[in-house]
Amino acid sequence: MRPLIAIDWGTSSLRGARLGRTGQVLESREFARGILTVPPGQFEAVFKEYFGDWMQAPDALCLISGMAGSRQGWQEAPYCPCPAGFFELGQHLLWLQPGRMALVPGLSYMGADPLNTPDVMRGEEVQIFGALQMAGRKNATLVLPGTHSKWVQVQDARVTQFQTFMTGEVFALMSQHSILGKSLDLNGAIDEAVFLQAIDRSLQAGSVLHHLFAVRTLGLFERLSATQLPSYLSGLLIGEELRAQDLSAHSDPLILIGSEALTRRYTLALQHLKVPCQSRGAEATWTGLYALASSCELS
Amino acid sequence: MRPLIAIDWGTSSLRGARLGRTGQVLESREFARGILTVPPGQFEAVFKEYFGDWMQAPDALCLISGMAGSRQGWQEAPYCPCPAGFFELGQHLLWLQPGRMALVPGLSYMGADPLNTPDVMRGEEVQIFGALQMAGRKNATLVLPGTHSKWVQVQDARVTQFQTFMTGEVFALMSQHSILGKSLDLNGAIDEAVFLQAIDRSLQAGSVLHHLFAVRTLGLFERLSATQLPSYLSGLLIGEELRAQDLSAHSDPLILIGSEALTRRYTLALQHLKVPCQSRGAEATWTGLYALASSCELS
Repeated sequence: MRPLIAIDWGTSSLRGARLGRTGQVLESREFARGILTVPPGQFEAVFKEYFGDWMQAPDALCLISGMAGSRQGWQEAPYCPCPAGFFELGQHLLWLQPGRMALVPGLSYMGADPLNTPDVMRGEEVQIFGALQMAGRKNATLVLPGTHSKWVQVQDARVTQFQTFMTGEVFALMSQHSILGKSLDLNGAIDEAVFLQAIDRSLQAGSVLHHLFAVRTLGLFERLSATQLPSYLSGLLIGEELRAQDLSAHSDPLILIGSEALTRRYTLALQHLKVPCQSRGAEATWTGLYALASSCELS
Repeated sequence: MRPLIAIDWGTSSLRGARLGRTGQVLESREFARGILTVPPGQFEAVFKEYFGDWMQAPDALCLISGMAGSRQGWQEAPYCPCPAGFFELGQHLLWLQPGRMALVPGLSYMGADPLNTPDVMRGEEVQIFGALQMAGRKNATLVLPGTHSKWVQVQDARVTQFQTFMTGEVFALMSQHSILGKSLDLNGAIDEAVFLQAIDRSLQAGSVLHHLFAVRTLGLFERLSATQLPSYLSGLLIGEELRAQDLSAHSDPLILIGSEALTRRYTLALQHLKVPCQSRGAEATWTGLYALASSCELS
């Protein structure tokens, strides 16, 4: 197998790993050079600046996932429609240098509503296949918490459907720009009991548009302190995300992929609801890109 | 009856009306001098600047409702707990000049959840009683759309319970500060068909945290134009507010109180759902303060 240069180029960061012939990570790098910092036409130059040395290996193969393949990125790699697995992703690679460097497309899923409302992901598909590989599973529900959380169904090693939730972005907007922000002190650690109270509140009847206002009044009436309120806000929003799921359907553990801080919150909430789960970190990206290269016999 | 100086001093505006002895509006004024523009200790001076001439009538009575009675306002007028009608409001007036000038308190309602989560309003209570007076009703469900929409139950002329929804604020955050903002053109008129499609979507299963992401993808896939997307966003959020209500319970018309632009949207949505409703404008404030003064025999 040829040496793989695995790149995850997202909105706010640029990460890369040089993998050995059996997939082991030989070296990794991370830079605050997300696609939003790169002027149009400069992607190749920025890539060479940070990873040019790795590409000097004559038989190197480079696969790039994430927002680099979006309309605002290096080149637009059209979405690969679901259901999609390694075969479909491999068919939809956008080759920047034939046989040597490609953008991995994101996935799209069209809803059954009157507007066929689309849902999309870019970069998560690679983490999903990596996490499945690591867990040795071909069927799973996966959750990728974050700015735009993804809930994903995989059947027989193909993503069959998924849904995006703006949970992380709404948390940021509420704590930074809304009237609630005045009540919050974001410097404290999570208060697990308060977080779970908010999870329970969201799972009951009512609307999150109403529950959110409680963050203001619980502060105003001193029921919760300024350092407890972010835990309450976080619990309300994650609880609202969980409310929309059929959690009774899961006998196999859910697979969570993301930072330790975020997957810990989801694990707390899911354990509270007696739903089994297990977590994977960002290394799923490298496993996923390696598995994609292997299964498409690119290397 | 003494001449009434009716003042509504809110977060972003200061409105006043001079009423005749039978409640007719003789003169009204409005200034962009909401409480957020007034330094602590300066409320009396600002009031005198704009309404001092009206107060020269020796037998004038002045009632001030709204955020002027909040902790950030002129003085804090503690919330009057529900159930509350004119009698309870009259008991909780905070007199700035005994018998001559008073702050009308807001209302509070304590939830039955473990934290007794409070809900609060300031200023709306006066509009509610004014609208009931104008409609000649003592029992009603009222909706006050806005930054923080209120759904209010009134039984036998007393507010028995109410809920706040952050609908307007979330619309502003989403259109101004979120990733969705990039897709929206806010300069168009409402597209009623698109607005109602979004109402229907929110009333179905799922979560508003998911539905919101559609505003991005419907733009990305050119299913809706940039000028249509604000109607979709508005419909999703108002639909989420409606989803939390038991609309089947209403045989008498709902009473909407607010600006023409906002009550028109709620009227569209409610007619679509075959729920009868009628609208009242900001003049409900003057009627409400006059009715409060009369019924408490203040004048």
